Amino acid sequence: MKQVIFVIGVSGCGKSTIGKLLAQELDLPFFDGDDFHPKANIKKMSSGLPLNDDDRQGWLETMNDLAKKQLTKNSCIIVCSALKEKYRDILSLDIEVETKWVYLRGDFNQIYNRVNRRRNHFMPSELLKSQFDTLEEPKEAIQIDISLTPENIIKTLKHKLMDKSEFGLFGLGVMGKSLCRNLANNGFKIAMFNRHVDGVEVDIAKDFKAKFPELSQSEAFDDIEDFVNALQQPRCIMLMVNAGKTIDYVIEDLLPHLSENDILIDGGNSNYVKTKERVDYLKTKGIHFIGTGVSGGEEGALKGPSIMPSGDLKAYKSVQPFLEKIAAKDKNGLPCCTYVGPEGSGHFIKMVHNGVEYVEMQLLAEVATILEALGQNPDDIAKTLETWKPTANSYLLEITADIFRKKEGDDWLVNRILDKAGNKGTGNWTTIASAELGVPSTLIASALFSRYISFYKEERLQLSQNFKNSSTSELNLTTNDILEAYQFARVINHYQGFKLISEASNTFSWDLNLSEIARIWTNGCIIRSALMEDLVEVFKDTTNILTNSKLIDLVNQYRPSVKKVVSQCVLNDITTPALGEAIQFLNGITTPYASANIIQAQRDYFGAHTYQRLDDDSGKSHHTNWN
Amino acid sequence: MKQVIFVIGVSGCGKSTIGKLLAQELDLPFFDGDDFHPKANIKKMSSGLPLNDDDRQGWLETMNDLAKKQLTKNSCIIVCSALKEKYRDILSLDIEVETKWVYLRGDFNQIYNRVNRRRNHFMPSELLKSQFDTLEEPKEAIQIDISLTPENIIKTLKHKLMDKSEFGLFGLGVMGKSLCRNLANNGFKIAMFNRHVDGVEVDIAKDFKAKFPELSQSEAFDDIEDFVNALQQPRCIMLMVNAGKTIDYVIEDLLPHLSENDILIDGGNSNYVKTKERVDYLKTKGIHFIGTGVSGGEEGALKGPSIMPSGDLKAYKSVQPFLEKIAAKDKNGLPCCTYVGPEGSGHFIKMVHNGVEYVEMQLLAEVATILEALGQNPDDIAKTLETWKPTANSYLLEITADIFRKKEGDDWLVNRILDKAGNKGTGNWTTIASAELGVPSTLIASALFSRYISFYKEERLQLSQNFKNSSTSELNLTTNDILEAYQFARVINHYQGFKLISEASNTFSWDLNLSEIARIWTNGCIIRSALMEDLVEVFKDTTNILTNSKLIDLVNQYRPSVKKVVSQCVLNDITTPALGEAIQFLNGITTPYASANIIQAQRDYFGAHTYQRLDDDSGKSHHTNWN
Repeated sequence: MKQVIFVIGVSGCGKSTIGKLLAQELDLPFFDGDDFHPKANIKKMSSGLPLNDDDRQGWLETMNDLAKKQLTKNSCIIVCSALKEKYRDILSLDIEVETKWVYLRGDFNQIYNRVNRRRNHFMPSELLKSQFDTLEEPKEAIQIDISLTPENIIKTLKHKLMDKSEFGLFGLGVMGKSLCRNLANNGFKIAMFNRHVDGVEVDIAKDFKAKFPELSQSEAFDDIEDFVNALQQPRCIMLMVNAGKTIDYVIEDLLPHLSENDILIDGGNSNYVKTKERVDYLKTKGIHFIGTGVSGGEEGALKGPSIMPSGDLKAYKSVQPFLEKIAAKDKNGLPCCTYVGPEGSGHFIKMVHNGVEYVEMQLLAEVATILEALGQNPDDIAKTLETWKPTANSYLLEITADIFRKKEGDDWLVNRILDKAGNKGTGNWTTIASAELGVPSTLIASALFSRYISFYKEERLQLSQNFKNSSTSELNLTTNDILEAYQFARVINHYQGFKLISEASNTFSWDLNLSEIARIWTNGCIIRSALMEDLVEVFKDTTNILTNSKLIDLVNQYRPSVKKVVSQCVLNDITTPALGEAIQFLNGITTPYASANIIQAQRDYFGAHTYQRLDDDSGKSHHTNWN
Repeated sequence: MKQVIFVIGVSGCGKSTIGKLLAQELDLPFFDGDDFHPKANIKKMSSGLPLNDDDRQGWLETMNDLAKKQLTKNSCIIVCSALKEKYRDILSLDIEVETKWVYLRGDFNQIYNRVNRRRNHFMPSELLKSQFDTLEEPKEAIQIDISLTPENIIKTLKHKLMDKSEFGLFGLGVMGKSLCRNLANNGFKIAMFNRHVDGVEVDIAKDFKAKFPELSQSEAFDDIEDFVNALQQPRCIMLMVNAGKTIDYVIEDLLPHLSENDILIDGGNSNYVKTKERVDYLKTKGIHFIGTGVSGGEEGALKGPSIMPSGDLKAYKSVQPFLEKIAAKDKNGLPCCTYVGPEGSGHFIKMVHNGVEYVEMQLLAEVATILEALGQNPDDIAKTLETWKPTANSYLLEITADIFRKKEGDDWLVNRILDKAGNKGTGNWTTIASAELGVPSTLIASALFSRYISFYKEERLQLSQNFKNSSTSELNLTTNDILEAYQFARVINHYQGFKLISEASNTFSWDLNLSEIARIWTNGCIIRSALMEDLVEVFKDTTNILTNSKLIDLVNQYRPSVKKVVSQCVLNDITTPALGEAIQFLNGITTPYASANIIQAQRDYFGAHTYQRLDDDSGKSHHTNWN
């Protein structure tokens, strides 16, 4: 099928170079628009004056004629700035075959620096600003980031022009849809698949494509074979389906249509053990499997999530341009996406991320309970949380303040929500992983179990009749006491979360970079916070945040407050398990001689499990006949 | 091979009946010793006078001659009281083939009642006492409990006389050895196996048999085929090997030698999920698999453990006589062994047993820490714990008092034990099962994580330098405050443990009987206690102990003390995570309106997870655009 390909963009974007390389690659005739200017235009530009639309009219018509003439024989490539929509209308006028626009996109500084490095060009760089002022970015073009290497640009273009999609997305739930739009907004040509289920899921992909203009270049499928065939090889297919058995079913459905070296990316909250099993299984089929955590919820997935991919490093390199492009950016403009490590390490850290998130949420719930006990209404609580932002800001703090502000009629909405907390498995898995790895993640377990307790609503109502509160002291706390207790517990929470990651890294020889992990969690994800920003630096020096002098000082400073808050809450029957565990944990992990000697004596007494002695460094096992 | 079988025992034990039935079953000639008394003896006995040894000499020689004469033709069965060793020496004098002794054992009351029900017998029951006075129980006899039915006795005898063992025990570690001796002491003929590993495990079974006289009738093997062939069919083989992969290896090693309907009993601490898998797998091979918890440590296994078997009920019936016989007995004399339920339910409740045990141990360690902070030395602590026995007795309390008393030279031994607590998996699995089943076992997780924290000894030493204690209040507690806090936490611990069992029973449709489970835990096992005795009754009316009025009163009575203890410990930097969790849990499970509404709002805000409303009973999901 013949086509005319216009390579467009502001002066200095590299369109001549790319156009020529592309013509070479596709074996097509090449024409540079600059060669078709009438002498009057060249003279005007050389004297430093910009062209006006009248100057351009004839020139654009010349090129339109050229295109039509060429198309009688063959396809062709024409390079031309074509900054305005109406210029492009002239260029494509009456061309009946498909017109393709390749738009080379760069920002002012990028291009200014590039132009100033060039000699003997007739367009002075001072005119660049007027080009940007004139530019109306094309909506339907194939957009190419000029920071890529020419080789990469040509490779990408070749695929796009051959009409194959670059990236497939399988499963159009909330997260899948957001990621599709994010990919399309970033100029990727994608293929989207959602299954067909009679009367339940019908034309999901097609209807979704129709709803959002940015998806006009995307392809929509409900047939797996068509979907797979629409993709460039090696294929990159991201699965956004429910974690668990579904992933395995989808893999089996896809396998017959895949080719060697294709790459599947599991972007769901899969269990890290299963991810390793799938990596190993698919390796036997010649397929790469990248398990990746994706955090940010619906909005994050659309605007830029935090992405935590793991698996085969070489395969990751193929999907890196997509994932890094759609990821959130950290404060230095770097993508909140990094290659985490081998096997299921990406899903492991996503799981821990969610565990930490459980605790952050639980702590805010406990804090609100205390503030309420002090007489604050939801608006007061929102205001209190607002005042904490300078010291303790986080995404979850922000949204919790929003939540407490939200009214429905005369009442606050939060008061009308049923107090049974749901969970989708990752908090549960984090607790299990802690137990299996021998790491004491007490806060995550506490937050998980608090949700479980909340689920026993009927039993709670029944038992509340049997056990009446019996406050035995005054609740005498300032909001600053509570803020400090909250911050104390957050430090312990982050200590425990990263400890779990660090121990898993040792156990599985993953060689994880804690600072990089903290960095990709500074934006896009649910647990982004000022504290996380600090941890990026802390982890450059240590894997244990309780050895960092700044955090030691903070913990010591906050400790009296957490003791005060927890003891008073206990005396006043206020439920604060996570705050309570936080101080218990610090006491435990800083005890030079713990009570575990008693446990060891008991185990030796009844089970002859033996013990080691303080006065015997040899590691020898001792046994005593105790009675 | 010809043999003479003497069926012996005191008058009235039923030896004539059994002897005749056995002769019928084995198709052998039968002789009743009573028929061979000289007239003088019969006259003496009828007049109420006991025989003396001179009276018996000729009579015994007559029977010895009878045996030797019969053996020239065939085997034979001779019934005779043969109460003394020297009588038996006369009876077996110069008999060159094997002499078998079948000793029918019963106690005085059993036999007295039986004799008094008989008429026209020439031996008045008043002489029974003299028989017992005379009796020297035979060491090398086949012992049979006369309370069994005659059919069962004959069946057992037939197997024993055919020289096959009744019960096989595979794996002679600490527990395996104790169980072997327990089985032998209870009169069972057993085959014992331990593998041969060059230079490491050599002649283990043989040497073990040689060491204990009660094992003289047992057979010792280090060859699997010989071991299996030594057993009566259907075979009962109890595996006492390390839980985990080893069980599967052992099963594969045994399988080629087993026959349909043989029964394997796994007495190790296997994971209940694996037990179900093994039940299903072995069913395909026609083999029954009984997973059973065994608690009591080395001593319990020897003297009577608590046994928790599960699996196929019909197969259980075959192993029931062995397991019930060797089990501990409850206060009513019933065995601390009951058929728990299907699948891996026996291993499940054993796992929970161990979880509850972790907590009981941890609470005692915390209690001791507080007592120490109050200035008590180990002797003082032992004395304090002694005074608690009337209110809070338990096996673990008893042994902990013993531990604190134990001195080594001038110092207490407990002070010299390294404070790193080991664990062998069941506490960890209980935490995992809780997480998986959605049940908040906060105390078990807390006790597990305390052990984990203790394991970070080097980090604790390092961090103790960074975080100095900062006591901010006086520790002002009585030992009674601590006792009440301890008892409070124990009630919560037992609530949580049985809650986990109850929820598992619902989830897996096991139909478990909580009262029976509490009953088999009243003796033989590590968590036996006065509280457990109470729970046997409590669970007859409810599955939730916090609805029992006596326990409600106790918890309400103890609550002020636990609040006082926990709050003061927090203020004084004393680590009491399990006590702390106990009061947090009661607060949580008795809160009519929990803070989970906030969690639900957060989840809906960032993940569109939706929520339910208090004012909408329909269960409908609601979603809000919060910001």
